[in-house]
Amino acid sequence: MATETIEVSGHIVDSLILARILDAILESGADYELVDVAIGKTNTDTSHASIVVRADDQAVLDALLDDLQVHGANRVAQSEAVTEVADLDGVFPTGFHSTTNLDTDVLLGGTWHEVENPEMDCGIVVDGSAGATRVRTVPVHRVRAGDRIVVGRDGVRVRPPERRAGPGTFEFMNSEISSEKPKALMIRQVAERIRAARHDGARVLLVAGPAAIHTGAGPDLATLVEEGWISCLFTGNGFATHDLESNVLGTSLGVGVADGVPVEGGHANHVRVINEIRRHGSIAAAVEAGYVTGGVMHACVRAGVPFVLAGSVRDDGPLPDTMTDVAAAADAMREQVPGVRVALMLATTLHAIATGNVLPASVETFCVDINQAVVTKLADRGSHQAVGIVTDIGVFVRQLTGELCG
Amino acid sequence: MATETIEVSGHIVDSLILARILDAILESGADYELVDVAIGKTNTDTSHASIVVRADDQAVLDALLDDLQVHGANRVAQSEAVTEVADLDGVFPTGFHSTTNLDTDVLLGGTWHEVENPEMDCGIVVDGSAGATRVRTVPVHRVRAGDRIVVGRDGVRVRPPERRAGPGTFEFMNSEISSEKPKALMIRQVAERIRAARHDGARVLLVAGPAAIHTGAGPDLATLVEEGWISCLFTGNGFATHDLESNVLGTSLGVGVADGVPVEGGHANHVRVINEIRRHGSIAAAVEAGYVTGGVMHACVRAGVPFVLAGSVRDDGPLPDTMTDVAAAADAMREQVPGVRVALMLATTLHAIATGNVLPASVETFCVDINQAVVTKLADRGSHQAVGIVTDIGVFVRQLTGELCG
Amino acid sequence: MATETIEVSGHIVDSLILARILDAILESGADYELVDVAIGKTNTDTSHASIVVRADDQAVLDALLDDLQVHGANRVAQSEAVTEVADLDGVFPTGFHSTTNLDTDVLLGGTWHEVENPEMDCGIVVDGSAGATRVRTVPVHRVRAGDRIVVGRDGVRVRPPERRAGPGTFEFMNSEISSEKPKALMIRQVAERIRAARHDGARVLLVAGPAAIHTGAGPDLATLVEEGWISCLFTGNGFATHDLESNVLGTSLGVGVADGVPVEGGHANHVRVINEIRRHGSIAAAVEAGYVTGGVMHACVRAGVPFVLAGSVRDDGPLPDTMTDVAAAADAMREQVPGVRVALMLATTLHAIATGNVLPASVETFCVDINQAVVTKLADRGSHQAVGIVTDIGVFVRQLTGELCG
Amino acid sequence: MATETIEVSGHIVDSLILARILDAILESGADYELVDVAIGKTNTDTSHASIVVRADDQAVLDALLDDLQVHGANRVAQSEAVTEVADLDGVFPTGFHSTTNLDTDVLLGGTWHEVENPEMDCGIVVDGSAGATRVRTVPVHRVRAGDRIVVGRDGVRVRPPERRAGPGTFEFMNSEISSEKPKALMIRQVAERIRAARHDGARVLLVAGPAAIHTGAGPDLATLVEEGWISCLFTGNGFATHDLESNVLGTSLGVGVADGVPVEGGHANHVRVINEIRRHGSIAAAVEAGYVTGGVMHACVRAGVPFVLAGSVRDDGPLPDTMTDVAAAADAMREQVPGVRVALMLATTLHAIATGNVLPASVETFCVDINQAVVTKLADRGSHQAVGIVTDIGVFVRQLTGELCG
Repeated sequence: MATETIEVSGHIVDSLILARILDAILESGADYELVDVAIGKTNTDTSHASIVVRADDQAVLDALLDDLQVHGANRVAQSEAVTEVADLDGVFPTGFHSTTNLDTDVLLGGTWHEVENPEMDCGIVVDGSAGATRVRTVPVHRVRAGDRIVVGRDGVRVRPPERRAGPGTFEFMNSEISSEKPKALMIRQVAERIRAARHDGARVLLVAGPAAIHTGAGPDLATLVEEGWISCLFTGNGFATHDLESNVLGTSLGVGVADGVPVEGGHANHVRVINEIRRHGSIAAAVEAGYVTGGVMHACVRAGVPFVLAGSVRDDGPLPDTMTDVAAAADAMREQVPGVRVALMLATTLHAIATGNVLPASVETFCVDINQAVVTKLADRGSHQAVGIVTDIGVFVRQLTGELCG
Repeated sequence: MATETIEVSGHIVDSLILARILDAILESGADYELVDVAIGKTNTDTSHASIVVRADDQAVLDALLDDLQVHGANRVAQSEAVTEVADLDGVFPTGFHSTTNLDTDVLLGGTWHEVENPEMDCGIVVDGSAGATRVRTVPVHRVRAGDRIVVGRDGVRVRPPERRAGPGTFEFMNSEISSEKPKALMIRQVAERIRAARHDGARVLLVAGPAAIHTGAGPDLATLVEEGWISCLFTGNGFATHDLESNVLGTSLGVGVADGVPVEGGHANHVRVINEIRRHGSIAAAVEAGYVTGGVMHACVRAGVPFVLAGSVRDDGPLPDTMTDVAAAADAMREQVPGVRVALMLATTLHAIATGNVLPASVETFCVDINQAVVTKLADRGSHQAVGIVTDIGVFVRQLTGELCG
Repeated sequence: MATETIEVSGHIVDSLILARILDAILESGADYELVDVAIGKTNTDTSHASIVVRADDQAVLDALLDDLQVHGANRVAQSEAVTEVADLDGVFPTGFHSTTNLDTDVLLGGTWHEVENPEMDCGIVVDGSAGATRVRTVPVHRVRAGDRIVVGRDGVRVRPPERRAGPGTFEFMNSEISSEKPKALMIRQVAERIRAARHDGARVLLVAGPAAIHTGAGPDLATLVEEGWISCLFTGNGFATHDLESNVLGTSLGVGVADGVPVEGGHANHVRVINEIRRHGSIAAAVEAGYVTGGVMHACVRAGVPFVLAGSVRDDGPLPDTMTDVAAAADAMREQVPGVRVALMLATTLHAIATGNVLPASVETFCVDINQAVVTKLADRGSHQAVGIVTDIGVFVRQLTGELCG
Repeated sequence: MATETIEVSGHIVDSLILARILDAILESGADYELVDVAIGKTNTDTSHASIVVRADDQAVLDALLDDLQVHGANRVAQSEAVTEVADLDGVFPTGFHSTTNLDTDVLLGGTWHEVENPEMDCGIVVDGSAGATRVRTVPVHRVRAGDRIVVGRDGVRVRPPERRAGPGTFEFMNSEISSEKPKALMIRQVAERIRAARHDGARVLLVAGPAAIHTGAGPDLATLVEEGWISCLFTGNGFATHDLESNVLGTSLGVGVADGVPVEGGHANHVRVINEIRRHGSIAAAVEAGYVTGGVMHACVRAGVPFVLAGSVRDDGPLPDTMTDVAAAADAMREQVPGVRVALMLATTLHAIATGNVLPASVETFCVDINQAVVTKLADRGSHQAVGIVTDIGVFVRQLTGELCG
């Protein structure tokens, strides 16, 4: 167990700095204790926190301390900065101190010297002798053999950014809804939450839009339903129609699901399937009669998983199960909410927001879409608890099914 | 073999109608012969085409003819429309004619009757008796038992939309870059083109951006290089750095590639790796020295696959192999162009456009990105030959590797 | 009047080449006559077209011919290529021939010589003497004083790209839905279509989503209604609620419309306004009672403009005018369709698609959104006639109002 | 002056709850004093804060307290909840308490009763008599005349959501980069920051991409430069070329800037302009010679505003002023950083990230783009200080110019 005490000062609560520091500590697997916290009483007072950080070993702790410095946290115990002379043009000594873009000071000869030109991802060069010391950042391609470069963590402290004055500092966070992160861990975490919910007898709600079928996720979703991972389904006429069309005729919006080629029919396939389901009277009746033999809706009927098909003014048909009265549909959704612990929202803005309207904030909500804007929109509507994952629905559902049913 | 002759009239060349019809015929697996084409001589003249369509069986042909009617093409041989009486409220007869939104006529009693209210995905109701016949569309929920409904294909013709007058009719096509289509077929087609190129001794060019590494595609790309599917690589300092960082330290931008958790280092990892590669003098030297033991750049060095790392003003470091003179980098790319038949562009706007600048139009170019705008931008810059696929890079590369190396 | 005859050969119909050429001619303000067209009878035959192009003056015609060569069209009359010697390193002679990326030939000494390395935006260098002539492209930074460079249009011909074999050549066009084009002309054209419709007594349909209010377009839309430019309005509970909230309380979703600061209320404002309108019994009654004194809905009531508020499962409240039965709402929309010539769809996917479902293809449809995907989605659903404009709704409506009411 | 004391408990620091509360107070124009704060020492301990809130008048304070309850903050002073009987079906009493989606309790008969089914934007119905009291939410359409409904703020408290256990709680904030907010205030705030910088003698840095010219912002940017609002310009070959092309030939990428029609030239215009500027030797020389008479680059030359044109591998030409060595270009940018207080980044990912790399965190950075992803990407690269504004560049620059030069 390795331990270090850090401190941070400034507008650390209202600028989110303290929250980010604590989050970074936990994310790294380390733990913390707040040993001294003085919160500024008013908008203009600054705050101060001392935090003991504990990690399993020194390497993890050291890496974490580097990251925390990006947020403005410094070690309390500070000794003189150590320098080393560069031996090659364009190359730093191996243990060089890599800078943030925050205002920075370096402790040399017992005095803190301000770095002249803060810039991220640089080294720090120390020029001059005692009494005339200057410290400045230098990018790697400009270091020259013979330059004195700060190495290691000692004797370098940073200052968190000033909060800009006044209201309306419409800041945004380094949002986790970026599409550039590996998705495998996120999917594994969603699987764990679903597994935990089922283990505890809690319910899992699936909310899905028609793109879940277009992108080929139908068979995997049917498997999830069949194997008992889904407790209820909120969707609309489009999802159900495309699911039924793809299973009855092998097409989705007239395009072959298996090969992408419009082999067997055309633009009218979905209306024809709706018409036949209307003739049977309900999806369940069409399943019973053997007209529908696979797919998500089939799996729901067979497994007794309740579904709410909420109508929309853009619906074709609609299917006999689609509730054309949207107030009644929202009420039907409310009936299903008790007991839900996890909600999984796939490729739907309309049904995600509608579901967000009727869910308590305590429900763990995961919103998956290829489009980042959908996720932002859900939070804008008040469902702050939603966690966004930007990826292709097909790959998400395939991997989730692999985790849960593999 | 089933055959039918269709015809289409209007501004069918400049409104793309004829091109869409021929494309739809080929996409369905059918074939055509143009038996009579009269192209309007000027902007205001209309054109006319008669086309013999041949398909393997009648079912495919019938489905195709339905689709072609959406584009305004009618069968030449037209007999009376057939009607059937609806037996249930809200349900059409099974073989009902499903409408387009084009102006439509129905042949009844030897006379063409104009449909009063064209609307897509409806049925056609025939009211009144001979001499006072009216035909109108009806959505399925409003049909009533006893209504006479047109069934089948006979006796229904449509008229293509008028071209709006004047220049600047900034029309857009039903673009194939939609994110809502199954990707499996597209990926298989890309694999076939690559396989054909290698079989013929032609070269395959990989162009990739850093997101290809962030999204976890690195190991699969390395496999493609190792197994000889890639002839040369165009990328930049970011891709190479993240690839090297992920293999040397197990992180990409400081985040663990395997599990998404920032375990072993931090924001400065990429600068540290760059610094060490600079110390070795080149990526190849770092591979030789055993500092780099895996990844895409390692595979290129081992397999003798040439790469061009074109510099960018946003680069950290850079790596010693990165060409900081961009005019020299473009020239180095030009050296590699001869012999390239297939170009695969993954998650990069900058390098995709740069490559598009130096590629002949005859190179088969596939541009893959999670963001539709990138694909549009490439075409806007003159690379009209590029085919766009909107999906997660991770899943694309995984499936492509499965097809080629599985 | 300047005239030139051009020709183009290859798969010019199914590869859209001919359509693009005719479109480019009309867009430039020039005109054409097709003097000789031979359309290939089958998929594998090539086609040929000769086209007389006429423009107002030679400068326009010359510029147009350059553009047409990008699509593979050459002048029929070809004389020897003219060359000029570069006088400076890195600079072409002023009238240099600027290349496309198509396969290209140059006529020198009575013989067509193939350009060795086609690349766009380059010059053509002629090396060697008669009998050993070589022609190749060179980018401007690599030309050297003394190089012989082709100048002007004479003696350079291109070949259109080969159509890739087989179905599924999922090509996409240089789409006009790019967000990088000046919008002023497009908006002026929309204004002209609306003005023409009103002049002819045809109806103009406005379809709008709630973002039209959030982005501050409400006052301008109200002006358009008041001044008689809108014949009917299709929207939903959200648009009407935010319009009413912003006029009764000065907020939209609790945020001050005038200044962006949440001064006067909070998250519950919209529910409170809905509750009070419910108490009045209808929007019209609330207008009569003086509870609502401005905004789009107020303008509709005062001007007698009919509106359809189609319900959605995500609605709060809803307003008493909102039709919770979506099948009934679609029917109410159908009632309003006759006589509509122009449809303007602003910042709504749901209502745009719903309206597209019930509109004939002959209605001129403009779909405006900040998000390119919405426009693509509308076409994917069959409304091929829709023209997309990617821009901020606030600025679009402000400029349109300026054009029509200024 | 109106005052109220509120309290909040739970994981209020690491879940950002306290930061959001303080931010909401300041944004409303109110002020606060933290009178009692107990921060949990470890990850599992909860924290508690008591906050005195002061606003100018009671109405603002009341509205603010409603908003704070969404974040889990309750008033310390709590009296019995007040109820009122609904007089109409489907309508709440006017002062009804509008719910959040948090777990909620109501104080009735001296006892806190838990609300059975938390749901946002509902009313609270009280059923039963003393000893058997039940409280539940009800949406407005389901209230019935005679129901007892909680009115006002008294006697209703909420509980903040539990922090989900463990690392990786990849939460995201209600981000301010939404495209659905009124932009006018944001633009005014940017103008104020620029005005303040100039007043203090600090420098304003403009960073721009080529889309700034395509979208018609060029003339306004030139005005900003001419009137002394811009101290230096970072951009690339594309921006400068399109600016020069649009002023020399009236086109941008061959499209007429004034009317959107490609009248005067074609795809090669930009290469021709580059060629002529190369002939002059520099942009400044071409301005001196009268070849360039307007535009942003012209304004920079005339006003003595320094610019850095950083090269890119995708550049055509390039212009003689473009620095093809990107490491040298980054160094040239570093020269300009001292004294910069405000950085304005318009429609560029490449130059925005490059600039972010060399800017201290203390520079006020505004990133404007029609694409939300660009803004996220900038923060992902470490420039946490950047504020994002999602809008059309044309309208942003027009309004900013109006604010500063109007």
